[in-house]
Amino acid sequence: MPNNKAFTLAHRPVGFVDDKTFNFGEEPLRELQEGEVLIKIQYISLDPAMRGWMNDGKSYIKPVQIGEVMRAGTAGQVVESKAEGFSAGDFVTGYGGVQEYYITQAKHLVKVDTSFAPLPTYLSVLGMPGMTAYFGILDTGQPKAGETVLVSGAAGAVGSVVGQIAKIKGCRAVGIAGGPEKCKYVVEELGFDDCIDYKNQDEHLRTAIKRTCPQGVDVYFDNVGGEILDTVLTRINMKARIVICGAISQYNNTTPIKGPSNYLSLLVNRARMEGIVVMDNIANYGKAAKEMAGWMAQGKLKSKEYIVDGLENFPSTLMRLFDGKKLGKLVLKVAD
Amino acid sequence: MPNNKAFTLAHRPVGFVDDKTFNFGEEPLRELQEGEVLIKIQYISLDPAMRGWMNDGKSYIKPVQIGEVMRAGTAGQVVESKAEGFSAGDFVTGYGGVQEYYITQAKHLVKVDTSFAPLPTYLSVLGMPGMTAYFGILDTGQPKAGETVLVSGAAGAVGSVVGQIAKIKGCRAVGIAGGPEKCKYVVEELGFDDCIDYKNQDEHLRTAIKRTCPQGVDVYFDNVGGEILDTVLTRINMKARIVICGAISQYNNTTPIKGPSNYLSLLVNRARMEGIVVMDNIANYGKAAKEMAGWMAQGKLKSKEYIVDGLENFPSTLMRLFDGKKLGKLVLKVAD
Repeated sequence: MPNNKAFTLAHRPVGFVDDKTFNFGEEPLRELQEGEVLIKIQYISLDPAMRGWMNDGKSYIKPVQIGEVMRAGTAGQVVESKAEGFSAGDFVTGYGGVQEYYITQAKHLVKVDTSFAPLPTYLSVLGMPGMTAYFGILDTGQPKAGETVLVSGAAGAVGSVVGQIAKIKGCRAVGIAGGPEKCKYVVEELGFDDCIDYKNQDEHLRTAIKRTCPQGVDVYFDNVGGEILDTVLTRINMKARIVICGAISQYNNTTPIKGPSNYLSLLVNRARMEGIVVMDNIANYGKAAKEMAGWMAQGKLKSKEYIVDGLENFPSTLMRLFDGKKLGKLVLKVAD
Repeated sequence: MPNNKAFTLAHRPVGFVDDKTFNFGEEPLRELQEGEVLIKIQYISLDPAMRGWMNDGKSYIKPVQIGEVMRAGTAGQVVESKAEGFSAGDFVTGYGGVQEYYITQAKHLVKVDTSFAPLPTYLSVLGMPGMTAYFGILDTGQPKAGETVLVSGAAGAVGSVVGQIAKIKGCRAVGIAGGPEKCKYVVEELGFDDCIDYKNQDEHLRTAIKRTCPQGVDVYFDNVGGEILDTVLTRINMKARIVICGAISQYNNTTPIKGPSNYLSLLVNRARMEGIVVMDNIANYGKAAKEMAGWMAQGKLKSKEYIVDGLENFPSTLMRLFDGKKLGKLVLKVAD
């Protein structure tokens, strides 16, 4: 068996992750047992949710334990299988963690077809971020044709898909993103109707929402929280739906989270704010992937991955989620 | 025509209402025109929402203008009618304002039957607070038998009805109220399963919720906002429903409203927070009143009014909504 290099959680970070958050070590792999599969990881999905998994305390998933390999979604290739239905060479996705190889039971793996889409796409539109966007906007956001859908983190893995689905459903799709390059990408490449650069000092966010969403906001899909959520609350329509998917502006806080002080706008507008967790929809992933693959084939839905090379670059690459310097889904390439 | 005494809005208050917020004056009444009714007001409903109506800015209803008679729900008796369907002596409810008499068109009046319930009850369980409770808990809270319903402002006009309806629907009903006297009333007179005294310094609110809601909170009906809402958010169950009815702790703020910093609990628990405004249900008031009257007749639903005498006492009595010194629905008696 080959040796395996892995990042394990060294201690629970306070604020931002840094070089000391993880240990990087190497160990020989154990032998496979009956029913198990050995996978060589090729791509590791880097997601904002990972920051939350490092914190102790009750959440929607067990925190990563100190000394444990850092949890992450992965795509790779089967090296050896003692499980029915899997053979060496098969491409699979799963939660392999931040490492080169992993051994798991067959039930935790999903086989994917790389003749349809390249492997990293299965960590993007056809993976967890795509599923988050799909179920979040359709089931919870319930957009109707002609309505205005506003989405923060619009150049990111989830937000980019939310806006594209809103367009497919006949809505006006407006993004919020940081910087002119991202806004250009959101409008010109992804086909959003407009995009607000929240870093632009010349226009207050509230004014920019008024300008780009002249009919008000019917659905707001929130990936960022903080001031942006609070400001959007002042521009929602009657019976608006606010989908709480994440709060990336708050994940590295060392002070208490900023709650939305304009939440009484929910009352004035008889509006709803609802949280979502993608894994609740696991039974319907197949159906969603099929529909999104169809949209991709028709050219209505684009998947863009921002790929960084080298397992050893994991900690610094993870930080790119929070410093805003990337376009599309952030993926770490570990092997060819 | 008699003279009419009325409270008009003198200026928009900052923080709490005081003696200078209103002008108290007297004017002769004008003659009735065709289609109009003259009503002598007997009871004026004092509600937390009135504080919001005094603020300028977009809300669910037009603000009271400076110089205008202060808006309020009222119950009284027809003195003279030039409208079909109304005769002198009829008892009616409407939005008569804080005054002795008013003239309005028949379409703004609802006739009530004082042989079934005393007139103040039509400002309480069978009026706006009762309707707020009924539609808020049933349509938005959607309580299922066996679930735990927690309600703040439990000794108040709306909260007291919410908890009683929760019991009728087979739920565990727990109140939050200020002081041992109110808690005793909520449990012993209204039949809630338990009540938390949030003013009790010996037990942290979070601990008290854990103790009284050992299965967690499935529905939280919020009348108060602020720290209480924020703390409840840490104890909600999966798929919990939070009904935002009001935020009495914040209405007299001179600083920005405190948003719920634990709002990400909505995400962790896939929970929903939704605002309600009673007048959206106006078409169904009749049905609701009939069902609640049935519960009252069966002894399952109690209406309690806290009646203060004398129109001239309006400003100081209004303040009792916010200083917590009352039990049940606050009503000002203006005439016999």
